[in-house]
Amino acid sequence: MRFTDATPDEINQVMELAHRAFVEYGKKSLAERASFMKAIALALEESGDELIHTAMRETNLPEARLRGERARTIFQLNSYADACLQGNWLEVRIDTAIPDKNPPKPDIRKMLVPLGPVVVFGASNFPFAYSTAGGDTACAFAAGCPVIVKAHPAHAATSQLVADAILKAARQSNMPEGIFAHVHGFSFEVGKALVMHPLTKAVGFTGSFTGGKQLFDWASQRKEPIPVFAEMGSINPVFLLPDILKDAAGATAKMYAASITLGVGQFCTNPGLIIGLESDALQQFIHDLGKEIQQSAPAAMLHPGIIKAYKENKGMALLQEEVHLVAESEKEVRDIEALPTIATATGQAFLQNPFLHKEVFGPYSIVIRCKDKNEMMAVAAHCEGQLTCTIMATDNDIENNMDLVTAVKNICGRLIMNGVPTGVEVCLSMQHGGPFPATTDSRFTSVGADGIKRFARPLAFQNWPGQFLPLELQDENVMGIWRTVNNELTKAPVK
Amino acid sequence: MRFTDATPDEINQVMELAHRAFVEYGKKSLAERASFMKAIALALEESGDELIHTAMRETNLPEARLRGERARTIFQLNSYADACLQGNWLEVRIDTAIPDKNPPKPDIRKMLVPLGPVVVFGASNFPFAYSTAGGDTACAFAAGCPVIVKAHPAHAATSQLVADAILKAARQSNMPEGIFAHVHGFSFEVGKALVMHPLTKAVGFTGSFTGGKQLFDWASQRKEPIPVFAEMGSINPVFLLPDILKDAAGATAKMYAASITLGVGQFCTNPGLIIGLESDALQQFIHDLGKEIQQSAPAAMLHPGIIKAYKENKGMALLQEEVHLVAESEKEVRDIEALPTIATATGQAFLQNPFLHKEVFGPYSIVIRCKDKNEMMAVAAHCEGQLTCTIMATDNDIENNMDLVTAVKNICGRLIMNGVPTGVEVCLSMQHGGPFPATTDSRFTSVGADGIKRFARPLAFQNWPGQFLPLELQDENVMGIWRTVNNELTKAPVK
Repeated sequence: MRFTDATPDEINQVMELAHRAFVEYGKKSLAERASFMKAIALALEESGDELIHTAMRETNLPEARLRGERARTIFQLNSYADACLQGNWLEVRIDTAIPDKNPPKPDIRKMLVPLGPVVVFGASNFPFAYSTAGGDTACAFAAGCPVIVKAHPAHAATSQLVADAILKAARQSNMPEGIFAHVHGFSFEVGKALVMHPLTKAVGFTGSFTGGKQLFDWASQRKEPIPVFAEMGSINPVFLLPDILKDAAGATAKMYAASITLGVGQFCTNPGLIIGLESDALQQFIHDLGKEIQQSAPAAMLHPGIIKAYKENKGMALLQEEVHLVAESEKEVRDIEALPTIATATGQAFLQNPFLHKEVFGPYSIVIRCKDKNEMMAVAAHCEGQLTCTIMATDNDIENNMDLVTAVKNICGRLIMNGVPTGVEVCLSMQHGGPFPATTDSRFTSVGADGIKRFARPLAFQNWPGQFLPLELQDENVMGIWRTVNNELTKAPVK
Repeated sequence: MRFTDATPDEINQVMELAHRAFVEYGKKSLAERASFMKAIALALEESGDELIHTAMRETNLPEARLRGERARTIFQLNSYADACLQGNWLEVRIDTAIPDKNPPKPDIRKMLVPLGPVVVFGASNFPFAYSTAGGDTACAFAAGCPVIVKAHPAHAATSQLVADAILKAARQSNMPEGIFAHVHGFSFEVGKALVMHPLTKAVGFTGSFTGGKQLFDWASQRKEPIPVFAEMGSINPVFLLPDILKDAAGATAKMYAASITLGVGQFCTNPGLIIGLESDALQQFIHDLGKEIQQSAPAAMLHPGIIKAYKENKGMALLQEEVHLVAESEKEVRDIEALPTIATATGQAFLQNPFLHKEVFGPYSIVIRCKDKNEMMAVAAHCEGQLTCTIMATDNDIENNMDLVTAVKNICGRLIMNGVPTGVEVCLSMQHGGPFPATTDSRFTSVGADGIKRFARPLAFQNWPGQFLPLELQDENVMGIWRTVNNELTKAPVK
């Protein structure tokens, strides 16, 4: 199937419709928003095998993974719908009037309101969960914003099927025309036109640093700059502390070989950098990790562009001075398949060569051997912002390395202890974000219901007659939302 | 007193110290942060008459206003310190492990952590409350960030006295060296060097559009972009609906004359634009407002640059085609004093001439006469983003103009009913922010304890042994913070 790029006129029409839909959607209750989102979840469920088979053809991802990812997408829609309805994310604050204060204190009531139409750019590696009906779209709908999705050209037909499901749900739920639009575009001009359009009020993106940073730059250069939440990947450093390595070098190697090759390494939380102290135990770990990797099976990557980039970036990394190949998979490999690979270098090499900090998107990781604790601290301090960091440690290791733990906290959004960074649980406590360049704004997350807040802003009502306030701010609190009333969190009505 | 501009070397030294202080300050408890903030409040209180007299000399603001503003600044420090200690702003979310889920659900616990050193640019019109020890500084300290203040050159000596008070409080509270720095700079190069410094992690600004937008542009163009919250003023549209005008044209005129001239119009919430429907009642309002303004006393503006700009901008506004002078103060005026002024124009003129949307900083307002409701809607739709909008209306007016109310909600951060926009209460429900160009990010506020969140980001801990978690995330909840545990808000310990 071929899709044609949206023309500037079409984009303008889409944005005008979204702008009008914004006003209408704003009149819907939280319950109506939530049931629309649940209708999308249902429509995805009903999209059946056709959707799975189309995605398999376009992404090379295996069927089980895609069925799992669709289930995750449905869970996201349903759980963010529940969060939307629960209303805690509205951050309702009420301060009642004190007329006899000098000057009199007015009655002020604040809640989050939607920003306006949101443009979403999906990820190539998550055709469902972080694409057309994925986390960004679900968060924007929950916040009260219409959504315009720019289809990922690598899975445009999959995206179209999902878009059809959303549009079907929108009709069934009596949503206004323009609540959702789906735009194709192979050329970067389509994305640029969407981001630059004056009626666009926010952008969500999941993908490469180059892509995300370009959107951020365009959005910042607009006459009216708009927020961009771009999740741009990460190398997810893993710090191996000495005691745990002495205890469990083999088990750790096994666990990491599995994490590095999971999904052909095509996860933004793939552990691309493993840092340890030079020792026999580290040598044992590297040896065991190499053995595991030699036995791991190559697998097809998402599309020709990705496998080409993997081969080039890996090749460049292995060409760097002082970088040594530890092991590659020894299995037979086809052209579209990525060969899992482990390299190693010294801490000194990492500190001197910024190229070693770069993400090699795929089943590749480099083990950095530090000569002492100070060098490990220096490596942590030289890491750019990350989605995740992991510390493999015994209690004793942590107690002996508190400075390192503090340094690592400052460079990431999620800090894992004795686990792997792959696997991003969808729950309120999840932080999928991190200091630049992991994302363009470390103050927000793209996974979990807190992601709704990317697309909403506070609006305060001063001295409004109760009957004209939004329901959420009225005295009675019929929706039973947690609200901060005169500095106390409560579900009680305002007296 | 003369101050010399900080050199690049000095700025670098200041930032290095702030970076080191960030690590040390991060080890302090919320209670220690709060008591440091309260010590600053006390030191301001103890700064006595010298501070007030210095500020009077530098700003031309009257003594009572300055004493009131210092009291407000002290209140901000104390109340944000209380909020800091209460800990609700940390947005603690805890999801406990479900080991028998497939795959197992990990234990994840999230809270806000500080961004890093924050550079603050104070306002000329609030030498205390939105300057050196003002709202941005208080929020940054509460969040856990060191602060570097760039002194406003128009009140550099006042700023220095306040800085000395902060440094005294820091010493008394055993705060690390570098927790606060004060940098002078008349040249824009000083501000630029501070914003561009790689160790700077966020910026707070209150002032003009030109100044704020420049900082935002610099910050966006950094290799590592950083968040800038710039509050850049507003013209604060006031919509006069027909019934209220019939009922109370005279009282409304009196109230607005007072608001327009309050503090010589030098407030970012000054009502610079008043919109009504052409009618006898509106004519009466304009007439009454003009009478009030004729009787109002001119007063000295903050500094020569401000009075010069007021005269120029007002002059330009009055030169626009279709803009007519209604009235000026008829009192005698000195060179440094601003003459309160009211102009008027048609809705058509406003729609066609963007110049009429521009802020004239000072005691000036323009009344826009719309020929009908549709034109009033068009005027609302053409207004740029605002800190506040106000609706003067009877209940009947509101019911008859719901579309206008919806349109007005979308352009502002605070919506006042039957009052004036001047007077910004310091409380949790306050929203002092708004869509661009009122601020650079409508998702945050610079007044009220929610302003702390500008300088903090979520960090999730996955599978951490309890004893190594921050106190706020440990099972016991010894601090009694409201936390969302498995999707329920509670103060109970985790079981």
